[in-house]
Amino acid sequence: MRCANGIEARQVNELFINIDPIQAGGKLTADAMKAVIAYGDGYSVCDNCRKPNRLDYISKPPIAEFHRDLAAWLNMDTVRTVPGARRGFQAVAHTYVHKGDPVLLTSLSHYTEFLAVEEAGGVPREIPVGPDNKVTADAAAMKIEEVRRESGRAPVLAIIDHVDYQYGNMHDVKAITAVAHQYDIPVLYNGAYTVGILPVNGKNLGVDFVVGSGHKSMAAPAPSGILATTQERATEVFRTTAIEGDVTRRKFGIKEPEMMGCTLMGATLVGMMASFPQVKERVRHFDEELENNRIVLDALLSVSGTKVLSEFPRNHTLTRVDTTASFDIIATTHKKRGFYFSGALEERGITGVITGATKIWKFNTYGITRKQALYLADAFVAIAGENGLPLTG
Amino acid sequence: MRCANGIEARQVNELFINIDPIQAGGKLTADAMKAVIAYGDGYSVCDNCRKPNRLDYISKPPIAEFHRDLAAWLNMDTVRTVPGARRGFQAVAHTYVHKGDPVLLTSLSHYTEFLAVEEAGGVPREIPVGPDNKVTADAAAMKIEEVRRESGRAPVLAIIDHVDYQYGNMHDVKAITAVAHQYDIPVLYNGAYTVGILPVNGKNLGVDFVVGSGHKSMAAPAPSGILATTQERATEVFRTTAIEGDVTRRKFGIKEPEMMGCTLMGATLVGMMASFPQVKERVRHFDEELENNRIVLDALLSVSGTKVLSEFPRNHTLTRVDTTASFDIIATTHKKRGFYFSGALEERGITGVITGATKIWKFNTYGITRKQALYLADAFVAIAGENGLPLTG
Repeated sequence: MRCANGIEARQVNELFINIDPIQAGGKLTADAMKAVIAYGDGYSVCDNCRKPNRLDYISKPPIAEFHRDLAAWLNMDTVRTVPGARRGFQAVAHTYVHKGDPVLLTSLSHYTEFLAVEEAGGVPREIPVGPDNKVTADAAAMKIEEVRRESGRAPVLAIIDHVDYQYGNMHDVKAITAVAHQYDIPVLYNGAYTVGILPVNGKNLGVDFVVGSGHKSMAAPAPSGILATTQERATEVFRTTAIEGDVTRRKFGIKEPEMMGCTLMGATLVGMMASFPQVKERVRHFDEELENNRIVLDALLSVSGTKVLSEFPRNHTLTRVDTTASFDIIATTHKKRGFYFSGALEERGITGVITGATKIWKFNTYGITRKQALYLADAFVAIAGENGLPLTG
Repeated sequence: MRCANGIEARQVNELFINIDPIQAGGKLTADAMKAVIAYGDGYSVCDNCRKPNRLDYISKPPIAEFHRDLAAWLNMDTVRTVPGARRGFQAVAHTYVHKGDPVLLTSLSHYTEFLAVEEAGGVPREIPVGPDNKVTADAAAMKIEEVRRESGRAPVLAIIDHVDYQYGNMHDVKAITAVAHQYDIPVLYNGAYTVGILPVNGKNLGVDFVVGSGHKSMAAPAPSGILATTQERATEVFRTTAIEGDVTRRKFGIKEPEMMGCTLMGATLVGMMASFPQVKERVRHFDEELENNRIVLDALLSVSGTKVLSEFPRNHTLTRVDTTASFDIIATTHKKRGFYFSGALEERGITGVITGATKIWKFNTYGITRKQALYLADAFVAIAGENGLPLTG
């Protein structure tokens, strides 16, 4: 089935249970889908733009109200939408990081954080993880001291993922922030896997910035995200334009250079707004999501030799497993090699595991129903069974 | 009618002829609308992402092919999609402009170009327009010389709008570029009002960069745009990442820092791709668009006292008029003041003129049918007539 111009109509989420690690929290709600249709045109949200002519002041559709609600929900003072979490990193890095400045990341930082540091001219300094693949406040303190010894000054910014993309491990941002603040280092909380997934309380964490991803975790179209700040930091990263034309003497009001003026419009913004009530509700039921994850992971671990590489028990639904000593054994002799595994999943209406992977792979059960969790669990056990893999106990 | 969360279903383009100056070229095609529904989820385009894992390499949906077609269509060597034209300005400014560097803009430059210069630390130097509100190569040469005298060096970048947002005037980018290149100044062609509207040939213009806006002129959702370059400039603005983790020694392959990695995903990108065949076709019929504009403008000018502030005859459908000596005369005594005019238009199913404006205002007839042009012409004349305004000859 084709839409247009050689583009097939995608039906992945209509036909499959999708456990893709990055897609789970971004599936549009039905309300978002309706909003996307009604606000498909980019400037659709600008019909009622009035002075002072900035996106976050528009009251119809209720964009201004959404900004207030979003900041309150995160327990932060101010928020802007951005074209993806990475554009939030970029705005903050550009504000605080100058050429040669050390910036605190972690050995599990996402590549977009590195790119934001690179673009600003900074020098990335990774807090090493422990043997359990967790970032601790102690390791952060040691790294800051190391940076101080080596470069004569503390890092100018720390970007810390609450839940990392590799293991889905939850790191103690609150304790790390307390350490960073002892050195006056502003902390950006990367909530790409948490904002819209589980409750996030910025003031309680003590962070200076909260970044979230619309298309990863807020059931919003791409590219979309949010950047929330404290009042103090808002005056820095959301400073208003000071530039002036040398001939016309034009100035540009309250537009914000780091935001490049207005940010999200049309489908991306209204999609995020339309999903917001359901997103607010769903974070309150994260325990049910963890229970679904447990059901699936228990089934995987019941196949002899399967190891979980993520912290265990799980604090997040994004999970990394090692099936080298279970499903991969079959792949070594199977005529389809590793593709037997993804093939068997696909036959059962399951997608999102990297095609052909049977050694180390990730899955994310976020957003599935209990019934689907049980179905997934049965499917993994059945695939093991039909390939003669032993089950434990 | 409500979608969700207090958001009314927008029906502007279903119920009205919309002559909003910035909305005309961004209305989604039916194909784009279908694609937006099928690819609403952000990571929908990533289902078949394979090594080297970058958006513009994905072949299903045919994103790689789209990039090739788009570059060829603009007669440029390389292209990337970006979250709005402004993010193209930002990437280029960030590559070439350092603190204190002069940058050549014009007295009609869009505010987002100023913000890009501001964010990069540059100093804007506007080429003044002549009395006809046109930017000429002579004026560009004089300004470059002025900058050289005053700052001891030529501007490091020129950003020139082919068609400006204020008057919709068409400026001689080819001649201006020839002058700029004599001083080795790279030229960014801002095609926010041209790419997707009329034929654009980058190599023929001689420019280094072509920026276009998806949601303004390519019938694509927001935020979306394109940044095309010559091969020479591609190695600069699309340089790949060089950053490395100090602990993990991670590198990040062929990701591009100025693009912040992958750029547009889901609805924005696939919407642009789905509209592309129609966009390519429509630019070939720009003469018909100008004829529709002429029909409407002639009718407005037939109302005694109306003046056209844009260049005349028109080279673009975005047009600025002064009705201070025609429709505004009624507003001075009408009980609804200026709102009588927008009210009368709305009664006739016409929207997009700033509510209450009767002095200086803009409209854009792009994309309307001949029948709608004739209807608009009749409507303006009828509103003049029912308010007793005299018609010329």
